[in-house]
Amino acid sequence: MSYPLHADEIQLNQNGQLRHFLTVEGLSKALLEEILDTADSFIEVGARSIKKVPLLRGKTVINLFFEPSTRTRTTFELAAQRLSADVLNLNISTSATSKGESLSDMLQNLEAMASDMFVVRHAQSGAPHFIAKSVCPGVAIINAGDGRHAHPTQAMLDMLTIRQHKGRVEGMVVAIVGDILHSRVARSQIRALLTLGAAEVRVIAPQTLLPFEPEALGVSVFHNMQAGLRDADVVIMLRLQKERMEGALLPSESEYFKLYGLDDQKLAYAKPDAIVMHPGPINRGVEIASEVADGPQSVILNQVTNGIAIRMAVMSMAMSGQIASAQNRS
Amino acid sequence: MSYPLHADEIQLNQNGQLRHFLTVEGLSKALLEEILDTADSFIEVGARSIKKVPLLRGKTVINLFFEPSTRTRTTFELAAQRLSADVLNLNISTSATSKGESLSDMLQNLEAMASDMFVVRHAQSGAPHFIAKSVCPGVAIINAGDGRHAHPTQAMLDMLTIRQHKGRVEGMVVAIVGDILHSRVARSQIRALLTLGAAEVRVIAPQTLLPFEPEALGVSVFHNMQAGLRDADVVIMLRLQKERMEGALLPSESEYFKLYGLDDQKLAYAKPDAIVMHPGPINRGVEIASEVADGPQSVILNQVTNGIAIRMAVMSMAMSGQIASAQNRS
Amino acid sequence: MSYPLHADEIQLNQNGQLRHFLTVEGLSKALLEEILDTADSFIEVGARSIKKVPLLRGKTVINLFFEPSTRTRTTFELAAQRLSADVLNLNISTSATSKGESLSDMLQNLEAMASDMFVVRHAQSGAPHFIAKSVCPGVAIINAGDGRHAHPTQAMLDMLTIRQHKGRVEGMVVAIVGDILHSRVARSQIRALLTLGAAEVRVIAPQTLLPFEPEALGVSVFHNMQAGLRDADVVIMLRLQKERMEGALLPSESEYFKLYGLDDQKLAYAKPDAIVMHPGPINRGVEIASEVADGPQSVILNQVTNGIAIRMAVMSMAMSGQIASAQNRS
Repeated sequence: MSYPLHADEIQLNQNGQLRHFLTVEGLSKALLEEILDTADSFIEVGARSIKKVPLLRGKTVINLFFEPSTRTRTTFELAAQRLSADVLNLNISTSATSKGESLSDMLQNLEAMASDMFVVRHAQSGAPHFIAKSVCPGVAIINAGDGRHAHPTQAMLDMLTIRQHKGRVEGMVVAIVGDILHSRVARSQIRALLTLGAAEVRVIAPQTLLPFEPEALGVSVFHNMQAGLRDADVVIMLRLQKERMEGALLPSESEYFKLYGLDDQKLAYAKPDAIVMHPGPINRGVEIASEVADGPQSVILNQVTNGIAIRMAVMSMAMSGQIASAQNRS
Repeated sequence: MSYPLHADEIQLNQNGQLRHFLTVEGLSKALLEEILDTADSFIEVGARSIKKVPLLRGKTVINLFFEPSTRTRTTFELAAQRLSADVLNLNISTSATSKGESLSDMLQNLEAMASDMFVVRHAQSGAPHFIAKSVCPGVAIINAGDGRHAHPTQAMLDMLTIRQHKGRVEGMVVAIVGDILHSRVARSQIRALLTLGAAEVRVIAPQTLLPFEPEALGVSVFHNMQAGLRDADVVIMLRLQKERMEGALLPSESEYFKLYGLDDQKLAYAKPDAIVMHPGPINRGVEIASEVADGPQSVILNQVTNGIAIRMAVMSMAMSGQIASAQNRS
Repeated sequence: MSYPLHADEIQLNQNGQLRHFLTVEGLSKALLEEILDTADSFIEVGARSIKKVPLLRGKTVINLFFEPSTRTRTTFELAAQRLSADVLNLNISTSATSKGESLSDMLQNLEAMASDMFVVRHAQSGAPHFIAKSVCPGVAIINAGDGRHAHPTQAMLDMLTIRQHKGRVEGMVVAIVGDILHSRVARSQIRALLTLGAAEVRVIAPQTLLPFEPEALGVSVFHNMQAGLRDADVVIMLRLQKERMEGALLPSESEYFKLYGLDDQKLAYAKPDAIVMHPGPINRGVEIASEVADGPQSVILNQVTNGIAIRMAVMSMAMSGQIASAQNRS
């Protein structure tokens, strides 16, 4: 099965409001900034004594994880709870659905239960688009990571973190370091950074961890940290999947760390006030040294906090957009 | 261990109100209609912007699934959430309880936690009755499927669907097709249909998938679709458990589909406005063709929507009945 | 890794209020009585029609179970729900955390999600202390059982049960029977009983199930039921882990029952109005006869009911203490 990989107009309703959140691609700078502004208001909610707003009260949110992920599922569950939604977690092994019931049948059943939103993680690129377009157009679909394609809430929480610490994304020089080839996170980050007007997006990686013709993504390519990090405002480290090592794409952990691992010495190539980000979970001593992860330039835990706020933002915005669409139809 | 299979008077309190929902058997037409009327009012709740009523607020509902079932468990969980109950899911492998602790001890412990309702699915026929009668009489027990015995909420959602689409159950000719022998769904449907005054209930199945002396159930028996579907108002297809094929009860999937699978051609034997139902999940091309499942006479997804409303109805009614019983005792 | 085993001053804020609940050790008689009094007020909540108070509304409680436990997890989840908290269950196999991410990194991530409370069960003694002291001091940590060290909520629910049935703990003669050596429950019970002024705490066990120098715990030691139970007001039976038998620490189940199992005959050695307690789940016919477990002196199910109230008490008290600490800091 091959799914469409572009969200086209599916994500927006006829008033241009978000009604699904599938990818950063195709969304305007204004809309991305609206997401960031909305998230800003939810950061304040997280700091309140009662961390709850009634925006999704009486709505049913189903976490549909076809790929296991405690971490991302947890942040979406907390975000939904703080929006006062009713949340249901379904961890579905793909084998199980293929055996008994088709994916479409299962999803239409869930839709018939008067579900309002599916948060979908799937190993196959484009699965959330397929659901939004062909299966359940009346349910707001939030992409929580699909194949190697996109992880748009991760990208947006990164943008929020940059804006928080640097005042803006516009004009920033951002270096993304590591396994660009296999990373849905990187793909979404690059798109969001370019849309928001970053001055330059650089990728730093060995040839084996870069896609074919990486320049087509709109980035500059570096194979060495000293050149790539020079004058960077933001350094984003990617998690190194250890199985890449076995797949002979990489020499060894220690060799990788020597060349691409971020320690204080390499971080000094960047601007003195550069911030260091990582989507987590971090491999200490593989792609990042503890001195950096726990150091004053690290904003890794802020990213986690911002992740809840971004998820609350896209969930509440997509729900509003769906409701507006339904009212237009009727 | 053998459990009692008749609910007798256990289901009702001394005012004749439901306080457990174990089986359709023994319940009056008036009570079944009260369940349907109550469910009707909850269908409206499912269509609201805030799908929540406070009827079970501050009550603890425990989903006790001794047999795995994502689908039924999900509908009960959503129903409980929309009634504002606190819900706890316990998936208990029977082996685990037999090892450490007796079933009775475990249940009495859960009761001592001030639980108000257990939704019980168990592979053993009569387990929910046993719990209601002997273990936790003060907890409302809802049968979510026990062995080959009963699946009463499924039967009632089917009745609701018939009433919705045909105006009434009374006077209808209903054909149930497939594995009657192993189906708790069929057993409960037949009972509910007869109580509500269906003109005729037919079962259509090969001899090997019928119980001994099926006529004792009050149904007419057919071994062929053309005769069995003639003038039917409602056609209920049952899911074919694929393991029956291996058990040599059936020749092959394609052979079964040829004889008993519902396609447009066979559906034409029924009345032109006949509706097609299926408890799900459907096996496309085994017991039902996609042209029928997705066709204009199919009400399969309506059944799913109605399932939430029926579960909300029996849960709220049984809770009221329990509260009234407790007040009578004190 | 070895963790510190004493909670010292970590458990209390500078006003002497509870802000973590890690162990009974080091807590004053007045504070333990405050816990019992608070729990008393929550017992009334459990009997209400709407079993809910808004004390933890908008707070995020994460059940972090590194050791599986349906029973204890369930009581904490119900307690949190009745305090109106948002609850998230994470069952974490220790292997998984060691593989990908350090325990500290995982916990700091959860903290960064604006979590308010972790309920922690861990196979390693001292893990909850480590988390409270070194990892997440701003999150209220509740110990739900750590290694052989402590199970303080179990001990406190036992104290509540004694006070309920005997009017007070002070002056009571309490016998604890069974596997003292491996029991975190016994360790916490002994501490709580002594702090609350029990006249005598006795342990009754074969030599192989006693720690080295048991008298150091402040208890009197008996190897025989007749002497140990004489004039006891309270008899606490411990669960016998069946694997002890295989480990050659014990002869056989029937031999153990003959010597240390509580039946009516042995119970007669205690005071006529002695109560019988057990933390559950019980092994009928191993450490306790059914005639006793189900008999008039058994308060085993009351313990379960009290368990919810105690957990509500320490959760709400620790949350208040944390909030007060945070206000002092700012």
